[in-house]
Amino acid sequence: MVKICILGGGFIGRFYAESLIGRRGKDLVHVIYARREETARRFATDYSVPHFSTDMEEAVAHPDSEIVIIALPNYVHEAAVMLCVKHKKPVLCTKPLGRTAEEALRMTLACEEAGVFAGYLEDLCYTPKFLKSVKSVESGAIGRVLWAKSRETHPGPHSDWFWDIEKAGGGAILDLGCHCVEISRNFIGKEVLPLEVMCWADTQVKPIDAEDHAIGLVKYENGAIGQFEVSWTFRGGMDLRDEVMGTEGTIWINSFLRTGFEMFSSGNGGDYVAEKAETSSGWLFPVGDEAHELGYPNMFVDMFDAFEKGTQPRETFYDGYVVNAILDAAYKSAKTKLWEPVQLPVWRGKRGLSKPSVYKDFDENHWLIKEELLPNGDRKTILKDKKTGEIRTT
Amino acid sequence: MVKICILGGGFIGRFYAESLIGRRGKDLVHVIYARREETARRFATDYSVPHFSTDMEEAVAHPDSEIVIIALPNYVHEAAVMLCVKHKKPVLCTKPLGRTAEEALRMTLACEEAGVFAGYLEDLCYTPKFLKSVKSVESGAIGRVLWAKSRETHPGPHSDWFWDIEKAGGGAILDLGCHCVEISRNFIGKEVLPLEVMCWADTQVKPIDAEDHAIGLVKYENGAIGQFEVSWTFRGGMDLRDEVMGTEGTIWINSFLRTGFEMFSSGNGGDYVAEKAETSSGWLFPVGDEAHELGYPNMFVDMFDAFEKGTQPRETFYDGYVVNAILDAAYKSAKTKLWEPVQLPVWRGKRGLSKPSVYKDFDENHWLIKEELLPNGDRKTILKDKKTGEIRTT
Amino acid sequence: MVKICILGGGFIGRFYAESLIGRRGKDLVHVIYARREETARRFATDYSVPHFSTDMEEAVAHPDSEIVIIALPNYVHEAAVMLCVKHKKPVLCTKPLGRTAEEALRMTLACEEAGVFAGYLEDLCYTPKFLKSVKSVESGAIGRVLWAKSRETHPGPHSDWFWDIEKAGGGAILDLGCHCVEISRNFIGKEVLPLEVMCWADTQVKPIDAEDHAIGLVKYENGAIGQFEVSWTFRGGMDLRDEVMGTEGTIWINSFLRTGFEMFSSGNGGDYVAEKAETSSGWLFPVGDEAHELGYPNMFVDMFDAFEKGTQPRETFYDGYVVNAILDAAYKSAKTKLWEPVQLPVWRGKRGLSKPSVYKDFDENHWLIKEELLPNGDRKTILKDKKTGEIRTT
Amino acid sequence: MVKICILGGGFIGRFYAESLIGRRGKDLVHVIYARREETARRFATDYSVPHFSTDMEEAVAHPDSEIVIIALPNYVHEAAVMLCVKHKKPVLCTKPLGRTAEEALRMTLACEEAGVFAGYLEDLCYTPKFLKSVKSVESGAIGRVLWAKSRETHPGPHSDWFWDIEKAGGGAILDLGCHCVEISRNFIGKEVLPLEVMCWADTQVKPIDAEDHAIGLVKYENGAIGQFEVSWTFRGGMDLRDEVMGTEGTIWINSFLRTGFEMFSSGNGGDYVAEKAETSSGWLFPVGDEAHELGYPNMFVDMFDAFEKGTQPRETFYDGYVVNAILDAAYKSAKTKLWEPVQLPVWRGKRGLSKPSVYKDFDENHWLIKEELLPNGDRKTILKDKKTGEIRTT
Repeated sequence: MVKICILGGGFIGRFYAESLIGRRGKDLVHVIYARREETARRFATDYSVPHFSTDMEEAVAHPDSEIVIIALPNYVHEAAVMLCVKHKKPVLCTKPLGRTAEEALRMTLACEEAGVFAGYLEDLCYTPKFLKSVKSVESGAIGRVLWAKSRETHPGPHSDWFWDIEKAGGGAILDLGCHCVEISRNFIGKEVLPLEVMCWADTQVKPIDAEDHAIGLVKYENGAIGQFEVSWTFRGGMDLRDEVMGTEGTIWINSFLRTGFEMFSSGNGGDYVAEKAETSSGWLFPVGDEAHELGYPNMFVDMFDAFEKGTQPRETFYDGYVVNAILDAAYKSAKTKLWEPVQLPVWRGKRGLSKPSVYKDFDENHWLIKEELLPNGDRKTILKDKKTGEIRTT
Repeated sequence: MVKICILGGGFIGRFYAESLIGRRGKDLVHVIYARREETARRFATDYSVPHFSTDMEEAVAHPDSEIVIIALPNYVHEAAVMLCVKHKKPVLCTKPLGRTAEEALRMTLACEEAGVFAGYLEDLCYTPKFLKSVKSVESGAIGRVLWAKSRETHPGPHSDWFWDIEKAGGGAILDLGCHCVEISRNFIGKEVLPLEVMCWADTQVKPIDAEDHAIGLVKYENGAIGQFEVSWTFRGGMDLRDEVMGTEGTIWINSFLRTGFEMFSSGNGGDYVAEKAETSSGWLFPVGDEAHELGYPNMFVDMFDAFEKGTQPRETFYDGYVVNAILDAAYKSAKTKLWEPVQLPVWRGKRGLSKPSVYKDFDENHWLIKEELLPNGDRKTILKDKKTGEIRTT
Repeated sequence: MVKICILGGGFIGRFYAESLIGRRGKDLVHVIYARREETARRFATDYSVPHFSTDMEEAVAHPDSEIVIIALPNYVHEAAVMLCVKHKKPVLCTKPLGRTAEEALRMTLACEEAGVFAGYLEDLCYTPKFLKSVKSVESGAIGRVLWAKSRETHPGPHSDWFWDIEKAGGGAILDLGCHCVEISRNFIGKEVLPLEVMCWADTQVKPIDAEDHAIGLVKYENGAIGQFEVSWTFRGGMDLRDEVMGTEGTIWINSFLRTGFEMFSSGNGGDYVAEKAETSSGWLFPVGDEAHELGYPNMFVDMFDAFEKGTQPRETFYDGYVVNAILDAAYKSAKTKLWEPVQLPVWRGKRGLSKPSVYKDFDENHWLIKEELLPNGDRKTILKDKKTGEIRTT
Repeated sequence: MVKICILGGGFIGRFYAESLIGRRGKDLVHVIYARREETARRFATDYSVPHFSTDMEEAVAHPDSEIVIIALPNYVHEAAVMLCVKHKKPVLCTKPLGRTAEEALRMTLACEEAGVFAGYLEDLCYTPKFLKSVKSVESGAIGRVLWAKSRETHPGPHSDWFWDIEKAGGGAILDLGCHCVEISRNFIGKEVLPLEVMCWADTQVKPIDAEDHAIGLVKYENGAIGQFEVSWTFRGGMDLRDEVMGTEGTIWINSFLRTGFEMFSSGNGGDYVAEKAETSSGWLFPVGDEAHELGYPNMFVDMFDAFEKGTQPRETFYDGYVVNAILDAAYKSAKTKLWEPVQLPVWRGKRGLSKPSVYKDFDENHWLIKEELLPNGDRKTILKDKKTGEIRTT
C-alpha cells in the first residue's frame, strides 16, 4: 500500500487520480498540491484527498507523501523533482521528463545520486495492447524488427500552457513525440543506440510559435528505423496507432479510434456527448475504458510494485532522458534540415551493433532472393549468383 | 477489503483469481476449495492462497471466507449456494445461475430469506464497452431500442463436464446463451417483461447429446426483440459481438476478435502461441488485456463495492433466474417448434407496457413515412393520408 | 453486342442504366419505357437512349429491343414478363421476381414454354466479394456449410409504391429478404431443398401496413440453416453483411458500410453530400464504386454472356420462384407463429439429403469431441465412450 | 472501339489483358509482342489475340495496332515509346514512365512533338476509392490538404528483372514510390510545385543492390507535405493505404488488406489458395475484384475515352516525368542525407504559391487557438493576444 502525493490539479493530475480510484486498489492519494487554492480544494473534494496545499514543498515534505507524482507543466518538472530529491521522496514524473535532455539528465542523475526511486510516467508504453505486442516481439513472433512507427495526432492539447513555447518547451514534437519515440525504442530494443534523427516540422494551422505537425525518422545502430508522426491539426478525434514491421511478421495497433466499438446517433435521442470526439452525432467511436486503454492502471501497478520490491520500473528517468535526447536532435534537424546526431553524454546500452547481413544461402553458389507462388500456379524461385551477381528465376 | 473464498479450482476459478491478483487490489483470496487435493494445492500455490480444502463446507465455513465465489460446474451451483445460506456467507455465483429457472429461483429466494448478499457473476455485462454502451442507451443516444442481439460463438468449451448434458444442464444455449440473453435485457431494459421465445437448436458437428448451435428470438412486452446466436462450432477464435438498433441510432460492439490489435506472424520467428486463437501463425487478433475486455475486474469491483455498501450489484441472483426462465422457454421451443411463453412465477418488473405507436404526424391530414435526399439532388417526402391511407410522394 | 430495352425509368431503372454506360461496354440501351412521358423523355436524354415510349407493349415489341430489362414495381412484373413472352423477347426481371411464388412460377413456366431466355436480376448474388466467397466455399475452403446469414437493413426504400402493401406485395421481407434468401441458398447449395421457415416480423417504426423489420430462419434438408435479418428502420446508412459458418472455416463480408474507405469531415469545408449516408459531416463511410460493389456490372455480364452463348445465367427465373416460395412461408409464419413448410410445387434440386453424422472416430472405442491447447500449456483431448456415453478428458 | 497492341507478355501484360477481357468491353487486344516466342504464343492463346510477334517494331507497326500498351521492364520503356513515335501510334506506358526524369522527359517531349497521344498507366490513381476521395477533396470536404501519405509494401515483386538494379533503374522507391508520389500529388494538387525531398532508404532484408525499404517526405510550395512508405520486406500480404489530413477533415483508404472481406480457413477443407496472401489457412483477407480495386478498368476507360475524344487522360506522360523527378531527388537524398531540390527543367503548374496564414481572428485583439469541451462539461476557449503574444484560456 502506497500513500500518494500528486503535484498538479489540472487535466493530467485528475486523469491520474481517476486511474487510481474506483478500482478497489490499495494505493490512495493522501496529498494534493495545486498552485491555486480553488483548484487544490476542488481536487481534494472530488477525489476524497485528506490533505491539500498550495505550497509545493509542504506537499512533498508531508509525512503522508510516501511517493510523489508530478503532474505539472513541463517547465516545472525539474524544480519539482529537485524538491523530491531534497526530501528523499520517491518520485514519478509525467512525460516528457524534461524540456531538453540536459534538464532530463540532471533530474536523472540527481535522483540516482540521492538514491531516490524515480519512475517515468510514459503511459502509452503500458497500454494492454502495447505490453502484449512487446512481449510477442520479444518472443520472436515477428522476427528482427525493421521499422517501428508510432503516430499520435489529435486536434490540440487541453491546457493553455501547451500553447506557450517557453512553458511547454516545444510543440507537438515534445508533447506527443515523446510517446512515439519511446514506443519505437521498446519495439526496437532499449539497448540499441539511437544514432541520428531527421525531422520535418511546421506550423500549418495553429497561430503559435511551436510546431503543430511533425514527422521524424530515427536511425538505430542495428539498422532498424523508428518513425514518429505527431500533430495537433488532426480532425476526427485522437488517432493513436503503432505499426511494426519485422522480418517474420507485422503488428498493427489501434489504441483509440477503432477499437471494436462503433455507435451511430442521429443526435435526436438525448444529450449524449461523446468524449474526445469532435461531434456528438453521426458515427462515433468511443473507447470502452479510456484510462485502461491508455495504460494508466498498468503503469501505476508497475511503478508501485517496483517501488515496493526495490526494483526498477519498466520506464525510468533514464528512459525519459534518452527520449529527450532524441527529441532534441529532432528539433535541431527541423531547423538545420540535416540528419542530426543524437547527443547522449550518458549511454548505458550496447555499442557497436551492426546491421545483420541480408544474404541468405540458397545453395553453395547462390543466394535466395524470393520464392513465390503465382496466381496461375507456377512456383518461382529468384536466385542471385554469388560470383557473377546474375539474377535469375528457376 | 474483502477476504475471498473460491469454490472450484478449474478454468473459471483460475480466471477469477487472475482477475483479482496483480492489480494491487485490496481484496485477496484466502480460501480455495477443489474436489481433488492436487487441484486445490496447485491453485493455492499458484495464487498464494493461505488455505485450501477438499471439503466444500469446511471452505465455506472458514473464518477467512468473508465472501464466497462459486466457480463450479452448473450441477453443483445449488448445493454450493445452500451451504453459503446455511453459514450466512455472502455469495457470488458464476453463470448460468441454475440449470433451470426452478433451481435458480430456489437459490434466489433462499438467499433473500436468509438475508445473504448474492451476486450473479455475469462478466459480459461488465465489459468496458458494454457498460459505456448501456450508459449511452440510457442517455437516449440511440432512442427507443428496437432490437438487441448478442452473439457468442467459439470452437467449444474447455472442461469435460460441459459436454455432459446431465452435468451441464444443456449445451451452447445454457453455456453461452445466458450471456446473450442478459446482454439484451440490459439494452432493452431489465424492467421490461420477456413474453415468449422462439428457438432453433441443433447438434451439427459435435458428437454430443446437447445442442452445439442455436439461434433464438425473445419478444418483450414493449415490442422490442432480443436475439441470441450461440455456437460451439465456430471456426476462427471466439466471436463476441453485440448489435443494437434504436429509433435514433445503432451500436456495434466487437469484444474479442476485432479490437484494434492485429498481428501477422510467419511462424518462423519463435514459439509464440496466441491464446484462444486456433493458429499461431498467419494473421492473429490478440486481445490486449483479456480479463478486462471480458469484464472480470469491473464485475468484482461492482460486487465488492455493493457488498460493502449494502446495496445490490448490477447483476443479481434474480437476474440469473430471469435469464434461466428465458432459456427454459428456448429449450422448450427448440423441441415444440412453437413460440413458448416465458414462465416467471416471480416477476418484479413492469407489466402492461405496450408498443409505441408508429404514426408520426406530418400535418393535420397526413402521417410522415420518410424524407429523403436522392443522389440526383431531388428531395422526397413520402406521406400517408390519414383517412384514405393513400401513399404519395411530394 | 446486345440492344437493350429498359421498362421503368425510376430509381432502379436509372441505376441499371448507369451500370451499363460509361464503361466502354458494347451493350447499349436502345429503348426506354416509362409510364409518364416526362420520365421517359428525361431518361432518354440523360442516358442517350434513341427511343422512348409510354406504351409498354410498343417498347417490348420495338425492333431495337433485343433483350428486355424489367425495372418496374413488383405488381407489374408478371404483366411485363407476359408481354415479353408474347413477343418472344429475352427478358431480365428485377427482384423480387413475383409478389408470391404463384406469380413467380407462372412467369417461369411461361418463359420456359415459350423458349424465352429469362434472367433474374439478383444483383447481390453478383458482388465481387460474394462471387469470390461462393467460389471459395465450392472449393472446400470452409468445409461443410452450417449456417449462412445475410443482413440487409437501411432507413427505408426510395419509391412511394414500396410503402403500399398492395403494390409492393409486402414490406421489408419481400424487398430485402429476397436478396438474403438467395445469398444463403448460394452458400448452402441451390440443389438443397428448403424445408421450412420461422419468421418474426413487426411494424416497429413506420406508419405502414407492411412489416418494417423481420428476422427469419430457413431450415434446409441437409441440416444447414439460413438466416435473414431485414429492416427499414436501421440508422446509420445501409448495412449489407453476410456471414457463413462452415465446419472448417468462416466468411464475413461487409459490402457497404465498412469497406476500407473512411472519411471525417467537419462539414465546414464545402457542400459535400455523401450518398446513402444519413449525414454529410462527422465520420462517413463512402463506397468506392457503388454499382460495382452492389454487383450490377457482373450481373449484366453474366446475363448477356449467357444469352449470347445460349446457356443459363447464374440466377434464373426458377431461382426467383424458389426465393418467393421461401418468402411466402416466411410471411405465413409471421402470422401463424409456426414453422411453415416451403411450398414448392415444382422442385428441380435434390431430395432425400440428410444431415451428416456428428460422430468422429478417435479410436475403436471412443469418439473425439475436442482437442485443445490451454493457456497454461496443457493439451486436452475430450473423448466420448462409444458404449457407455461417458465423457472424459485425457 | 479500340484495337490494342500489348508489348510485353509477363505479369503486368497479363494483368492488363485480364482487366480488358471478360467485361463485355468493346476494346480488344489484337496484337501481342513478347521477347520469347513461347511467351507470345501462350499469351495469344490465353487471351484470344489474333496476332503475336517477337519483333517489337513489327508489333507496333501492325495495322491492327491502333493503340500500343507498353508492359515491359523499365529499361525498355524509352525504346518502345520511340517506336510508337516513329510509327505515330498512340501509346500508353506502364509505371514508372522512366528510370529517371531525363528519360521520362525525353519520352514526353518526343510524343508531344510528334503529336502522339500518350497516357501514363498509373493504375492506383484510378481505384474507385481514390477517384471518389479526390473528388471529395476537390469539393472541399476536408478543407485545405496538409499532408498526403501513401503506403505500398509487400514481400517483393514477381519478375526477376526487378531485382537487377540496372534493368529496373532502382528498387522499392522506383517500383512502388512512383504510385505513392502521384497519389500525393493528386490530393495536394497537380498544379502545386514539389520543392524538395528527404528520403531514407536501406537494404534491410533482400540480397540486392537496390533498396528494399524507404520512407520519403516531399515538400510542396503551398506548405503541404507528401509522404511515401515503400517496402519489399513487408510480411502479411500487400499493404496499400492512403491517408490524408486536411484542415477540415481526414481520409483513410485501405485498398487491399482490409476491404470488408474476411475468411478463416482451417486448411483442411480443400486446396484453396488465396491470391497474394502469404498463407492459405488461418485468417485471410481476399479482395473482391482485384483488378477493379487496383484501378485497371477505370484507367483504361479514361485512356480510351480521352483518346477517342482527343482530350488528355487524367494521367499523362508529363505526370510520369514529374513523378520521376521527385524520385530522382529521393534517390539523391538517400545518398547525400540532405533535402534535395526537385529538378524540373519543364514545369507547367503554378509558381509562387505560399503557405496560408495560420492566424484566425477571434476578436479585434485576439487570435483563436482552440475551442474545446472538456469531459467535466467545462468549455474552454484558448486565445492569443495579438500584441503581447500572451496565451490565455477563457
